[in-house]
Amino acid sequence: FSTEAGETIRATLFPGDGIGPEIAESVKQVFNVAGVPIEWEEHYVGTEVDPRTESFLTWESLESVRRNKVGLKGPMATPIGKGHRSLNLTLRKELGLYANVRPCNSLPGYKTRYDDVNLVTIRENTEGEYSGLEHQVVRGVVESLKIITRQASLRVAEYAFHYAKANGRERVSAIHKANIMRKTDGLFLKCCREVAEKYPEITYEEVIIDNCCMTLVKNPGTFDVLVMPNLYGDIISDLCAGLIGGLGLTPSCNIGEGGICLAEAVHGSAPDISGKNLANPTALMLSAVMMLRHLQFNDQADRIHNAILQTIAEGKYRTADLGGKSSTSDYTKAVCDHI
Amino acid sequence: FSTEAGETIRATLFPGDGIGPEIAESVKQVFNVAGVPIEWEEHYVGTEVDPRTESFLTWESLESVRRNKVGLKGPMATPIGKGHRSLNLTLRKELGLYANVRPCNSLPGYKTRYDDVNLVTIRENTEGEYSGLEHQVVRGVVESLKIITRQASLRVAEYAFHYAKANGRERVSAIHKANIMRKTDGLFLKCCREVAEKYPEITYEEVIIDNCCMTLVKNPGTFDVLVMPNLYGDIISDLCAGLIGGLGLTPSCNIGEGGICLAEAVHGSAPDISGKNLANPTALMLSAVMMLRHLQFNDQADRIHNAILQTIAEGKYRTADLGGKSSTSDYTKAVCDHI
Ligand SMILES: CC(C)[C@H](C(=O)O)[C@@H](O)C(=O)O
Ligand SMILES: CC(C)[C@H](C(=O)O)[C@@H](O)C(=O)O
Repeated sequence: FSTEAGETIRATLFPGDGIGPEIAESVKQVFNVAGVPIEWEEHYVGTEVDPRTESFLTWESLESVRRNKVGLKGPMATPIGKGHRSLNLTLRKELGLYANVRPCNSLPGYKTRYDDVNLVTIRENTEGEYSGLEHQVVRGVVESLKIITRQASLRVAEYAFHYAKANGRERVSAIHKANIMRKTDGLFLKCCREVAEKYPEITYEEVIIDNCCMTLVKNPGTFDVLVMPNLYGDIISDLCAGLIGGLGLTPSCNIGEGGICLAEAVHGSAPDISGKNLANPTALMLSAVMMLRHLQFNDQADRIHNAILQTIAEGKYRTADLGGKSSTSDYTKAVCDHI
Repeated sequence: FSTEAGETIRATLFPGDGIGPEIAESVKQVFNVAGVPIEWEEHYVGTEVDPRTESFLTWESLESVRRNKVGLKGPMATPIGKGHRSLNLTLRKELGLYANVRPCNSLPGYKTRYDDVNLVTIRENTEGEYSGLEHQVVRGVVESLKIITRQASLRVAEYAFHYAKANGRERVSAIHKANIMRKTDGLFLKCCREVAEKYPEITYEEVIIDNCCMTLVKNPGTFDVLVMPNLYGDIISDLCAGLIGGLGLTPSCNIGEGGICLAEAVHGSAPDISGKNLANPTALMLSAVMMLRHLQFNDQADRIHNAILQTIAEGKYRTADLGGKSSTSDYTKAVCDHI
């Protein structure tokens, strides 16, 4: 991406379900105050099935991201028991979102048991245990297929090393269980090793997932960039979020085919508090900051990021999930005031 | 098991590799001092392949456990690249060790970031992602099969609820990713629900693995007994061990077909410090305590358990992995003195 001075960028916005619209509103306000030259193309992701996608996601929504190549999404509830894939999985598939990137940093001023977390998980986002291939062999015996391909593994490994280098990170750890899944996780590791050779300035190591989880809870400071197959990424990214306070505080961004960047708050839609002006918009705001960095709007990204950190650190305005009493709008106003 | 006064029980001992023999020696000493009426049937698990088992485990070793129905095993290194299954997996398979039980409690006096851990993980130990079924579909595309059966799922669920009831536990949480692996993890959950109905006094809940890991690092006190498929158990039990200080402090016990109980230290064989009188025998001692409880030698189990907790809490004798300076034998002597 390169942007000329004065140019306006169009970006897609999926506010999502539940608290989604409220926290999306917070992002819009913050972007306004920071003078971010973005024009939102907002798409309501509703509950009607679009026959062209066979999902709850309209064709227009997908086209919007494909055209703009950049977007922000709020939480999407998975309609249960209707035989449809979750909206999240449909998006990953349709947009070829091959890498899910989640930086995880201890927030100064928001105390958890850890103050030394500074790592990034990079998750393969399209295959592995998420193949959707499952069947009953005989009554009482079911199997599911984990698929690992050279193409997807190389792609996510390339992205991880590229990311590490571009962000001044020193080490990439490939997380696996190749002592058991020798062929699938073995192929994943092989691809990581191949890519590692092209980045001699980055230290490469391989860590077995069980050991990785133990080390993460004992001493998360030992990790830098972690790259891994889909399910391990799902598990470890949530574990890491827990270290710094939970999914309400962790941003995420999906990298897709053709240079798509779809930033995303990975927490749920919290139907219990939706519409009550109680939700914490931090994860969506921080995800929006990732989107800005992708667009190289670094100045605005820094200002918004610092304003969020300061507001949380001061502690006067915090939402209920962080032990505070602020409404979504008061907290958002405080962030705006800090910009 | 019922034991008459004055009776001696025969139990199998596999000291294992690396530090195994040293820490097994510690257990023997502690058992002697506590007057445990056990006669060890010790088997060296060596590096020669037994053609009858096609593994590094001799037929006699297996027969010994099958006959005694109770045993203790130290760490076993997996010979790499010889095309043999790991000894650990061979044991699980040959002895039908269907449930791996790992209690995880904060140790009073050994400070970590958590002081409120008091849970037990119960892991299905025979199938799932450990099926060993993997192949290349075409060049660059490999798949592995996760197998879930009704039989193995019911068996481990039965054990988990039985364990919860027998140990005064109140809640069983089934850990899964059935929102993605609907059929495999779905079958696992279905079996857990069936068993749960027979235990109305035990609260039953289902927790998605990513959320479980996040909650474990934020607030482990919310969990009681956790039951899960093989790989999740591998990951979560190590995560939990990390919460209280690592695998050097966590006991484990495998429940097998025909009432076998094989207690096991799950840490590695630590070749770097082997033979140097530096290893921490705590995990193997605590595993031996689990074996004693299984045999209903509760008095000796309590005395040994308390002696270990006191020694660690006092802090005068601790091995290097816990930040202390004691040798294996000095620490062991301190435990013996406390009995
Ligand atoms: C909602 C669920 C399907 C999803 C996943 O498993 O990938 C979520 O946990 C995530 O991490 O985005
Ligand atoms: C050594 C390895 C094969 C084993 C496993 O994955 O089960 C270990 O991690 C364990 O938990 O006992």
